[in-house]
Amino acid sequence: MHYQAPLDDMQFLLTDVFQAEQQWQNMPAVAEMIDMDTALAVLEEGAKITGELIAPLNRPGDEQGVRLIDGQVVTPDGYKAAFATFAEAGWVGFGGDPEFGGMGMPKMLGVLFDEMCYSASNAFALYSSLTAGAALCIASHGTEEQKALYLPKLYSGEWCGAMDMTEPQAGSDLRHVRTKAEPQEDGSYLVTGTKIFITGGDHDLSDNVVHLVLARLPDAPAGSRGLSLFIVPKRQSDEQGNLTGANGVSCGSVEHKMGITASATCVMHFDKAKGYLLGKLNRGLMAMFTMMNYERLSIGIQGLGCAQMGYQMAAAYAKERKQGQKSGGLSQGIDPILVHGDVRRMLMTSASITEAGRALAVLTGLQLDRQKYQTEGAEDADALVGLLVPLCKAFFTDLGLECSVLNQQVFGGHGYIRETGVEQLVRDVRIAQIYEGTNGIQALDLLGRKVLPKQGEALRMLMADVEVTLGEAKARHPQWAEQVNQAFAELVDAADLLRNSDQGADAVNCAANDYLHALGYATYGYLWLKMLNALDERDDEFAQRKHHLGAFYFARVFPRFATHIAAARSEAALITAMDESLF
Amino acid sequence: MHYQAPLDDMQFLLTDVFQAEQQWQNMPAVAEMIDMDTALAVLEEGAKITGELIAPLNRPGDEQGVRLIDGQVVTPDGYKAAFATFAEAGWVGFGGDPEFGGMGMPKMLGVLFDEMCYSASNAFALYSSLTAGAALCIASHGTEEQKALYLPKLYSGEWCGAMDMTEPQAGSDLRHVRTKAEPQEDGSYLVTGTKIFITGGDHDLSDNVVHLVLARLPDAPAGSRGLSLFIVPKRQSDEQGNLTGANGVSCGSVEHKMGITASATCVMHFDKAKGYLLGKLNRGLMAMFTMMNYERLSIGIQGLGCAQMGYQMAAAYAKERKQGQKSGGLSQGIDPILVHGDVRRMLMTSASITEAGRALAVLTGLQLDRQKYQTEGAEDADALVGLLVPLCKAFFTDLGLECSVLNQQVFGGHGYIRETGVEQLVRDVRIAQIYEGTNGIQALDLLGRKVLPKQGEALRMLMADVEVTLGEAKARHPQWAEQVNQAFAELVDAADLLRNSDQGADAVNCAANDYLHALGYATYGYLWLKMLNALDERDDEFAQRKHHLGAFYFARVFPRFATHIAAARSEAALITAMDESLF
Repeated sequence: MHYQAPLDDMQFLLTDVFQAEQQWQNMPAVAEMIDMDTALAVLEEGAKITGELIAPLNRPGDEQGVRLIDGQVVTPDGYKAAFATFAEAGWVGFGGDPEFGGMGMPKMLGVLFDEMCYSASNAFALYSSLTAGAALCIASHGTEEQKALYLPKLYSGEWCGAMDMTEPQAGSDLRHVRTKAEPQEDGSYLVTGTKIFITGGDHDLSDNVVHLVLARLPDAPAGSRGLSLFIVPKRQSDEQGNLTGANGVSCGSVEHKMGITASATCVMHFDKAKGYLLGKLNRGLMAMFTMMNYERLSIGIQGLGCAQMGYQMAAAYAKERKQGQKSGGLSQGIDPILVHGDVRRMLMTSASITEAGRALAVLTGLQLDRQKYQTEGAEDADALVGLLVPLCKAFFTDLGLECSVLNQQVFGGHGYIRETGVEQLVRDVRIAQIYEGTNGIQALDLLGRKVLPKQGEALRMLMADVEVTLGEAKARHPQWAEQVNQAFAELVDAADLLRNSDQGADAVNCAANDYLHALGYATYGYLWLKMLNALDERDDEFAQRKHHLGAFYFARVFPRFATHIAAARSEAALITAMDESLF
Repeated sequence: MHYQAPLDDMQFLLTDVFQAEQQWQNMPAVAEMIDMDTALAVLEEGAKITGELIAPLNRPGDEQGVRLIDGQVVTPDGYKAAFATFAEAGWVGFGGDPEFGGMGMPKMLGVLFDEMCYSASNAFALYSSLTAGAALCIASHGTEEQKALYLPKLYSGEWCGAMDMTEPQAGSDLRHVRTKAEPQEDGSYLVTGTKIFITGGDHDLSDNVVHLVLARLPDAPAGSRGLSLFIVPKRQSDEQGNLTGANGVSCGSVEHKMGITASATCVMHFDKAKGYLLGKLNRGLMAMFTMMNYERLSIGIQGLGCAQMGYQMAAAYAKERKQGQKSGGLSQGIDPILVHGDVRRMLMTSASITEAGRALAVLTGLQLDRQKYQTEGAEDADALVGLLVPLCKAFFTDLGLECSVLNQQVFGGHGYIRETGVEQLVRDVRIAQIYEGTNGIQALDLLGRKVLPKQGEALRMLMADVEVTLGEAKARHPQWAEQVNQAFAELVDAADLLRNSDQGADAVNCAANDYLHALGYATYGYLWLKMLNALDERDDEFAQRKHHLGAFYFARVFPRFATHIAAARSEAALITAMDESLF
């Protein structure tokens, strides 16, 4: 089956839950580009291109994978033509700066379109996502000349982007990056080194690949404060973007992976490749973070997209596949497996998690828009973005795997067979817990850098709307409102405990993953109430479904909060005291 | 790295935790075959053959997979020779009847050897496991002539076994099996029909494949009470086992799967194939259950084996891979990632779950031995086996996936690359949640057929030793003992609630999965205390490790119990009331 974007839920979130149009009124640059009617029309177009053009490429692309032929990465059949259509229609430049040819769409819409892309095809979506991320980095840190040269090419998909950070000895720990950049008299640099795990590092979808490469000058300080960021195109060009020749950039090999086989994961060699400083010397990591934050949210949404696609497939299968019978039925009866409580449990777990996740994605998109477009409140938004991005990245993808496994389980034995397609989602989504900073790194970032500092300011900022929401929910759902209220109080309390722990950084390191999950389940509780509030008196099928899923969430998923907060509060010494030799 | 069986832990369980030798004194047939010295020597040999012969075939076997060439399944390079060595050494007949050439080893050892086999290679282990299971079924239900013909051939691995139940319209629901068996004048039957998902349905490891086929006579009653079981060999033979020709059994295709690619999953066609009734007419399902219970425990152990193998790989990687630094270290320092709390959390989660699981496997093996070899107490053992087998199957495999994912996560990006090998464990273990009865089916069986009937007799039987264990643990670990005590009380209480629910079978169906998980975590708590009790005053490295992992289990894993029991107690109507059209 092909993908059908959940447009009704997306519209509900934009209009009823987050009052997007009202928000956009406070963002002149956005209001100028878009109103709700346009937004919904754009999403409908997005649904069409992802469902009709991209999704059909996903299974065959997985079987074929990328191939390295004569030093050039070849993508699966159909990718090149589809990417051209996709890019020409402006989708790569969806959130791009209109001054340079971008569509200027707010991130609140962007997260929804990202979800569609990942539902349709993880591998395909990555080429576009990396390109948009590279463009964002250049738009934020580039000179006017750099913007004028690269942005139109990237937004139009004529050129693609890649992010080159990891080296064999420098993965999560970028202090040890060795790639060097030697300054030249003309102001450019010659970049030499090897990067690994480079998504979209080479391919045939575009004429050029613009690498953003972390490297260090020969005299740079050791560690991360000696890293600078360089634009290193695969092919050189003149200032108008006409290609003028090769540039010492080559793909050494492509990895054979568990999933996203149609996404090229490359070993990239830079051999005195001409590069251009992006941003300031020795501040490369900071510039790279612009792109990384963008990619991190995007990768979180990969988790959502997979869960949503798998749910659609599993729900359809459960209605069609007949095995067993409804409790109390006739002895020879046979019913669709959807009658079985345990099958419903799996589907409702998947749906109740994914729909709360979509709400969190839109909330995070809104904060990114406020950060970018609003003058007032931009600082608050900044703190919220800092808090929510690692939460989205890790929580969406951890639960994205869980939901994908549940969706696969609904298929029984057929779910394990490649041709059914649902097992691909499990293989594909698995990488999202690992790349763009492992989920362990996200949790450390969330707890250590976002929750604990400033006496918990960022968490309090999130709690401002939580309190408003709980106040509104109290009349109809007093018990759930109290549970969520209590959960946030426990999160604050656990943060205080950890902040004052005599185990210091170890306490954070040991608690981070469980703290992140506890915050995630509490936040989903808050967002479920926010969605139920927005339904108000509605009693159509859409509203009925939400009420069922919300009730399910509180009864069957939310209780996980207690487990995670207990684990997060437990002594770090339980983990740190075990001698290395005993592992 | 190659597999190294955890022999010290296995010995600890046999000698200190479960006093195997003492148990064997009550089982004359076992005591005759084996004492502890022999048992340990056997396990050492098992460790050798799995580590040195089987494990090295696992990665290349996955890459090559099985192929169907001219209607014959060809296994990966090296499989045939390795299987011959393995079978000639008697390992296929490990638990087989000595009268017909089996080794007659008790299941308490068998579960440990099974774990080694699955750690070394899931795909390879399945060929042997299915053969042993088929032999067990023939040993239990066959005539003397059938035993004399088939058992020596199966124990020696000259012939292999397969279990043919599923048809396209009959998976979890076997009532709809259509394959027919027409009685012939000579007392044999002609079997015609198509079976799917037949593990080891065809291959080149042996001269013959002995299929145990569920089929129905033309005049048999509809539904499951009209099913009979037939021995249908791929090739016919005389009574001495000399092959005499083909038998209308052919492999139509092999499935392309997410994992266990070196295990042949076949579509099997039976075209008037000569078959022989095994057991009684129309009682085929019951006879098949002998094999299924055996296979279900075996498949549970697949989950354990994968988790153990992955842990070994991940622990070794964490000691070797350097990224980041210990909290409070020098700014340019670099340490093995094992210093990081979150990496340790993943490893300790994996180890604390897997080691409790191994204890449960041995406990279950012990009950199978008591059931088979003891005259006194066999009935109790029967009830315990009924309770523990579905728990092992589902809980080991659900947590086997979780642990495999955690082990993979320790590797960061390298864990997603096929050549590292750890991603294969995730793909391979995933099937174990599905086949041999999905974990949803196991949960229904556990709660509906084992826990609830007879006013909870089976659970009370398990609780007898729980109480003894808690009594012994009280002095040293009063808090944990009380937590486990409370958990079992809640399990009894939840069972009472469900037994009396006005939602009937729906209540069971909706609660089953969470009830199974709650029982699993409570049981692991009990077994951790049992292991800690057995350590007594020991303070060597082995004991230190156990104490660390036990404490970790209670602080960080056991709290999940509360989540699952809450979910199991929640209203079934939360799940059943949602209209089908809303999914």
